Amino acid sequence: MLTKKELKEYCSNARENYLPHISIDCVVFGFHEGLMKVLLLQIKNGGEWYLPGGFVLKKEPIETAANRVLKERTGLNNIFLQQFHVFGDPERSKQHFDMYKDMLPAKDNWFTNRFLTIGYYALVDFYNVNPAPDQFSADCIWCDLNNLPELKLDHAAILKTALDALRLQLNYQPIGYNLMPKEFTMPELQKLYETILDEKLDRRNFQRRMLGFGILKRSEQLRRGGAHKAPYLYSFELENYNAALKEGFKGRW
Amino acid sequence: MLTKKELKEYCSNARENYLPHISIDCVVFGFHEGLMKVLLLQIKNGGEWYLPGGFVLKKEPIETAANRVLKERTGLNNIFLQQFHVFGDPERSKQHFDMYKDMLPAKDNWFTNRFLTIGYYALVDFYNVNPAPDQFSADCIWCDLNNLPELKLDHAAILKTALDALRLQLNYQPIGYNLMPKEFTMPELQKLYETILDEKLDRRNFQRRMLGFGILKRSEQLRRGGAHKAPYLYSFELENYNAALKEGFKGRW
Repeated sequence: MLTKKELKEYCSNARENYLPHISIDCVVFGFHEGLMKVLLLQIKNGGEWYLPGGFVLKKEPIETAANRVLKERTGLNNIFLQQFHVFGDPERSKQHFDMYKDMLPAKDNWFTNRFLTIGYYALVDFYNVNPAPDQFSADCIWCDLNNLPELKLDHAAILKTALDALRLQLNYQPIGYNLMPKEFTMPELQKLYETILDEKLDRRNFQRRMLGFGILKRSEQLRRGGAHKAPYLYSFELENYNAALKEGFKGRW
Repeated sequence: MLTKKELKEYCSNARENYLPHISIDCVVFGFHEGLMKVLLLQIKNGGEWYLPGGFVLKKEPIETAANRVLKERTGLNNIFLQQFHVFGDPERSKQHFDMYKDMLPAKDNWFTNRFLTIGYYALVDFYNVNPAPDQFSADCIWCDLNNLPELKLDHAAILKTALDALRLQLNYQPIGYNLMPKEFTMPELQKLYETILDEKLDRRNFQRRMLGFGILKRSEQLRRGGAHKAPYLYSFELENYNAALKEGFKGRW
């Protein structure tokens, strides 16, 4: 929670630089070897939990704003964020209203405004990134998706909607290029899908469907050294993978 | 194009009632017996073509705004609109800037603001709806998707993005309840998908995939009276259909 002086300065700066009534929230899912996490900020002292979020500069493209916000709040860079929904309930910022409404008159108070928030999500390998909070606002932590703290505002609903969008995406777009090693076995890829969907999948159906997408190529090499029959190794066929990212899977009807 | 007096009145009213910097655009696709159309507005006299669009009232949920805008601009009511993307390039409203910038000083001129626009789409039976333009702005017409007039602003890109979203939706959500008769044959349903995708589909793959979704039930009755072998009749299993609308198709991995 800001002091009155800090609030006044923040609001005056915000009014000058940002589009009013519009915010951005980022849901960054992290995957590594069968574990799913999500990146959250914890306000210092207050202890309240939020998604990383911020505002759009007056002349800034919204995709640029989303990446800047994520960088400022978490130290994360160059993450491909996917827009998934705008949350536009007029009551959604009410907790902000209540928190700050007595500290500054409404006309000067950025936080008593209504904000529509544009939701973005990403899925990254959490092992490869080191979130670092900015100086004044927060700690920045990977939290277990199955054991989340209580989130402020409507951030729990935003996170749930992002997870639904990610799960739907598995049906029409490829996933995993930045998460899998260069070569992987079908069971390793299946583990990624099972972790995102939080359910066990049938091995044969999974293999048939994945091969049907036309984004995998099978290596001449087998994986050596295991106790079982050596499994085939696969890698992503990048041209098809990227085309499917843009246009969705083709020729499946 | 508005006169200076009309513009002044419009802008003063808009500033009082609407959230600044946010607009809504609606892409309404119409289907009937193998034809796809899209609903466009033509400005009177000017002859320019636009998607139906408008603004969000200061205390209005954005979904309510989308339906109100569509109703005001086209006479269409009770259409389920699906949010699909926010277009946030800072230059996207440039044609509006240029059109009105000399008529009013920027501080009074609503149209020289930057607008992010929230895109919504719907798919309806165009045979059942009679679009009626509002009194002052436009004609409202179903246009052939394959033979569109030139659209102003970035509306051609918005329409293209909506069509891509609709086509992707076929992979993860059901479609057609408000478009098909109560009972229909598999080739009739296939025709709907072929029209949306604008391509011929394989009969057997289509049937296998549709049945796999678990949203159809087969009637005891066959369709009688044709020259060929009587085909099976199907209807939608509404409980599963509605669940899949909310959560995407299940159990497909």
